[in-house]
Amino acid sequence: MLRPIKNNFKGKDVVSLDQFDSQSIIRLYKETASIKKMFEKGRFKNRPYKILDGRIAGLMFYEPSTRTFSSNSAAFKRLGGQTVEHQNPLVTSSAVKGETMEDTTMMMEQYCDILVIRHPVKGTLAKVAQVASIPVINAGDGIGEHPTQALLDMFTIYEKFGKLTGLKGLMAGDMLNGRTVHSLIRGLSIFPGNTVYLLSPKSLRLSRDEFKLYSQMGVKLVEINSLKQIPVDCHFWYWTRVQKERFSDKKVYEKLKLSFILTKKLVSEKAGKKTLLMHPLPRVGEIEIAVDGDPRAVYLTTEAKNGMYVRMALFKLILR
Amino acid sequence: MLRPIKNNFKGKDVVSLDQFDSQSIIRLYKETASIKKMFEKGRFKNRPYKILDGRIAGLMFYEPSTRTFSSNSAAFKRLGGQTVEHQNPLVTSSAVKGETMEDTTMMMEQYCDILVIRHPVKGTLAKVAQVASIPVINAGDGIGEHPTQALLDMFTIYEKFGKLTGLKGLMAGDMLNGRTVHSLIRGLSIFPGNTVYLLSPKSLRLSRDEFKLYSQMGVKLVEINSLKQIPVDCHFWYWTRVQKERFSDKKVYEKLKLSFILTKKLVSEKAGKKTLLMHPLPRVGEIEIAVDGDPRAVYLTTEAKNGMYVRMALFKLILR
Amino acid sequence: MLRPIKNNFKGKDVVSLDQFDSQSIIRLYKETASIKKMFEKGRFKNRPYKILDGRIAGLMFYEPSTRTFSSNSAAFKRLGGQTVEHQNPLVTSSAVKGETMEDTTMMMEQYCDILVIRHPVKGTLAKVAQVASIPVINAGDGIGEHPTQALLDMFTIYEKFGKLTGLKGLMAGDMLNGRTVHSLIRGLSIFPGNTVYLLSPKSLRLSRDEFKLYSQMGVKLVEINSLKQIPVDCHFWYWTRVQKERFSDKKVYEKLKLSFILTKKLVSEKAGKKTLLMHPLPRVGEIEIAVDGDPRAVYLTTEAKNGMYVRMALFKLILR
Repeated sequence: MLRPIKNNFKGKDVVSLDQFDSQSIIRLYKETASIKKMFEKGRFKNRPYKILDGRIAGLMFYEPSTRTFSSNSAAFKRLGGQTVEHQNPLVTSSAVKGETMEDTTMMMEQYCDILVIRHPVKGTLAKVAQVASIPVINAGDGIGEHPTQALLDMFTIYEKFGKLTGLKGLMAGDMLNGRTVHSLIRGLSIFPGNTVYLLSPKSLRLSRDEFKLYSQMGVKLVEINSLKQIPVDCHFWYWTRVQKERFSDKKVYEKLKLSFILTKKLVSEKAGKKTLLMHPLPRVGEIEIAVDGDPRAVYLTTEAKNGMYVRMALFKLILR
Repeated sequence: MLRPIKNNFKGKDVVSLDQFDSQSIIRLYKETASIKKMFEKGRFKNRPYKILDGRIAGLMFYEPSTRTFSSNSAAFKRLGGQTVEHQNPLVTSSAVKGETMEDTTMMMEQYCDILVIRHPVKGTLAKVAQVASIPVINAGDGIGEHPTQALLDMFTIYEKFGKLTGLKGLMAGDMLNGRTVHSLIRGLSIFPGNTVYLLSPKSLRLSRDEFKLYSQMGVKLVEINSLKQIPVDCHFWYWTRVQKERFSDKKVYEKLKLSFILTKKLVSEKAGKKTLLMHPLPRVGEIEIAVDGDPRAVYLTTEAKNGMYVRMALFKLILR
Repeated sequence: MLRPIKNNFKGKDVVSLDQFDSQSIIRLYKETASIKKMFEKGRFKNRPYKILDGRIAGLMFYEPSTRTFSSNSAAFKRLGGQTVEHQNPLVTSSAVKGETMEDTTMMMEQYCDILVIRHPVKGTLAKVAQVASIPVINAGDGIGEHPTQALLDMFTIYEKFGKLTGLKGLMAGDMLNGRTVHSLIRGLSIFPGNTVYLLSPKSLRLSRDEFKLYSQMGVKLVEINSLKQIPVDCHFWYWTRVQKERFSDKKVYEKLKLSFILTKKLVSEKAGKKTLLMHPLPRVGEIEIAVDGDPRAVYLTTEAKNGMYVRMALFKLILR
């Protein structure tokens, strides 16, 4: 059983959004905002922030990653800590000799103060957290969850609107395989009054089990299948990539990958003045480059940067 | 010729256990015990230990590694240093352009204060140490040696029994290809009165040359080939993995890999109350999971952790 | 358009030697000499140099590298900074999911203070510098340029002769594909009165366009095709490897790779007492091992070490 956070992060694992209640999330975001403010004001330019000096994070990435890997690495180092890193360790580490994740984890915890793990198999992080005696953070487990991505996305919304209740949002793309979508829906269901429109081709809808599960959690889900059905004045649009690596038949992928494209035209027709244009990235064609310059487009800027700050706040609350 | 340590580690290479005499090893272990005590008591939690601040270790790993790589990386960083790291550099570095190890080493020493190198070819480290003007540590050279692994294993025994003389031990698994076994036998032969039982299928016995060589060094070796022949009340059992990567014929590997399994039943029948259950890891089936919880089983805990502390002591004595 | 340095490095990109004028280069070399002197005197042994403490460099290497990667990593760390590293990221990062370099760069700049990028495609760095809002350093873009290599090579010459004017030099090997050659010629053309002899097989001569371009820049280029034509008393010989990775037909490569070899005999016949024997490394047979011990041979020692010091000076001037 995963331990709930309940406003006390110290020593806790972060495996699923289910561990959080609204109070914990707001606590995290106050810390994030405070760290962000201090750094953006340049307070640490000449006197670095060193609260994790001497501490070591183990970053174990068993799937390709630029963003999550780099932002975790930078976050830990911005707090004065150092990292022990394995990228793609299915090639470079003992995994090729046949070691189990449980053994690898128990060994890595002898050297490190915290572990950040990405793994291709859903559920791996829950198993690993069971055996680990130091905190473990899920950096994405297959089509399972990617909780810190959802936390940074929600922080980006919270920072803009000052609330996480009564929101109207759109999620578009691959609802079936997109773990960031799954985590974000779980996150928004923690707060009351949120409605999310889910735009995807029929074959990439949420699984019926997940649709039912999330609906019972308290978020209102509305499935749509054409751009015309997008409601006006959403608080956010959350576009996603069709997850190529989850398709065994690449022809099916090619047919579906650009079903819905976020264009400048669509923005001018359907977005509100304050609608945040978000994407967990990488994108592979589903957002027009022309949208990048729009002041509402935060995917390449604020959203990415917040990824570092939310992770800094998490590390601080868990380890201090 | 490798320079002997002779109780003075400063600036020395660590390529083979042959460089050590008993006094040097005890010196190293006093330092290790002292560092371990300070860290486990949390003395550096708020005021990090920074004796290698500003120093850089080059970690060059030409073969997969989780444990040795991570523990070296963590050890150097726990002392305040930083690292320049190449994992699997036969793919990612100039090695693909055809550079010799000697050239690579002479170049890396311009940037670093010490080098830690793993290489698939036996004898490479001795060659490299010849040309290097900074200290070089052997992190495993093919089926050659893996001296820091032996040093951490011996420290684990020393910490438990307060001595490295008059020991009775068992080593099981792949005696032919296991470089950790070779290094550990060399290490135990430095101290008087030690007897080691070697349990392996006949085709994985020590080479006759090595058997002769080690026997002359002062350790008593007794080869056995069934679990029944294991003597009672050993000070330690040192189980090992059959080294898949050393077999050209994978069928032979499959046939031999689980010849001898360390089971809970075997422990209850043959182990003594204080027998240390050790393994250099990774394991791939040759130790039952059920054994993990036994208080005598140190492979996933103390033995792994000592790997970091012994390397910290080595770095400290060599560089300070 | 790339911004010229004009003696003010702060916040600037370093993509091409074209950005430099003579004054900027001399400014850089005064800083380099000062840093080198302080480090070689051991001034920072006990009180590390920490001017980039808290800063993070992103090292993105999309092609194999030992030297450039390691010296950049070490340089940034010797100044107290930390790094976020991707080696061979065409395999390990979001590049496998199809992300553009522009997107990757815009994201990485959210986490880092400076980016050092190597990429197989010529011109990539100029494009990347356009979108990046933090400084970007070109660590080699295909057969394009490798400006910091030229800067370190020129520093090595400057340090020896106290000037970068009126020099007579020889470059040998692959003039067509060798980006370090291209950058060094550009660099020497910034100062008056330099003559460079270019020795290569005909098929590896400079492209006619580049020959014309460089000749107009102010350096005198003389193409030769036999060892006999090497003039005596050059200030430097700059030997290079034939760039295997740029050949689609490996037979052509095999035929050409050892066209001209730097031997002890050649040195005794044609080199002057002070002629610097240089090579950007790695070498794959085009310099005899016997030459290594010659006091004029700097490729494995001073030239490599200067690579770290020049990069330290660059980082300092750009970020402080």
